[in-house]
Amino acid sequence: MTADELSSVFAALADPTRRAILARLAQGEASVNELAAPFAMTLQAVSKHLKVLERAGLIVRGRDAQWRPCRLVPAPLRDVAAWAEQYRRLWEQRYDKLDDYLRELEEDGDEQADRDHPVGPGDRVDEGV
Amino acid sequence: MTADELSSVFAALADPTRRAILARLAQGEASVNELAAPFAMTLQAVSKHLKVLERAGLIVRGRDAQWRPCRLVPAPLRDVAAWAEQYRRLWEQRYDKLDDYLRELEEDGDEQADRDHPVGPGDRVDEGV
Repeated sequence: MTADELSSVFAALADPTRRAILARLAQGEASVNELAAPFAMTLQAVSKHLKVLERAGLIVRGRDAQWRPCRLVPAPLRDVAAWAEQYRRLWEQRYDKLDDYLRELEEDGDEQADRDHPVGPGDRVDEGV
Repeated sequence: MTADELSSVFAALADPTRRAILARLAQGEASVNELAAPFAMTLQAVSKHLKVLERAGLIVRGRDAQWRPCRLVPAPLRDVAAWAEQYRRLWEQRYDKLDDYLRELEEDGDEQADRDHPVGPGDRVDEGV
């Protein structure tokens, strides 16, 4: 997928109605009429959204002029996931930092508890209540 | 993240220069001047892109008027990955179908090989060359 293709996929996804159409098509193929029904939109408006999705390679449409069912093409969504996954290290670092902080808080708490109820190496420590 | 917030993240990502800016910021924070250098763009053009990224919550900028370093905020990218991952089942189904097909081809090939060089249960089979 070229940079321009990825750009047109992201542009196509930058609309809640188009994302809702993809969610519907994930359940199975549907005609323009079936897609228009839940959105209370004109067929013209839905057709415009479908053209954007089709140009981005996110859907294909049947050849039959009467029925022309729309079908989701998942490959560009896999590319979107892979693109975002490049940054996983960064968002996990944030969680690591939060984890470190929580662990520090916990350890401070433990030290406090140790001072309150010191336990020697020979002491039996009950797990549970 | 609301549907509108996700839309503005996708819209911000629908541009190769903005994605390149994010890739640069994944290496560490940078000033507008540092970001402009590799793109042979005016500071004005880069500033426009930064505003789009900032409004989408993908970057934050320092308060110091002289330096104002830009820093990547990875959380929206995690949301993009999670959104796309909803469709993993669909793109893996495609691969499963391809796997099934390749396995069938392979099994047909094995059957052919068995007919050419039958191996009994007691035969020693050399692994490797």
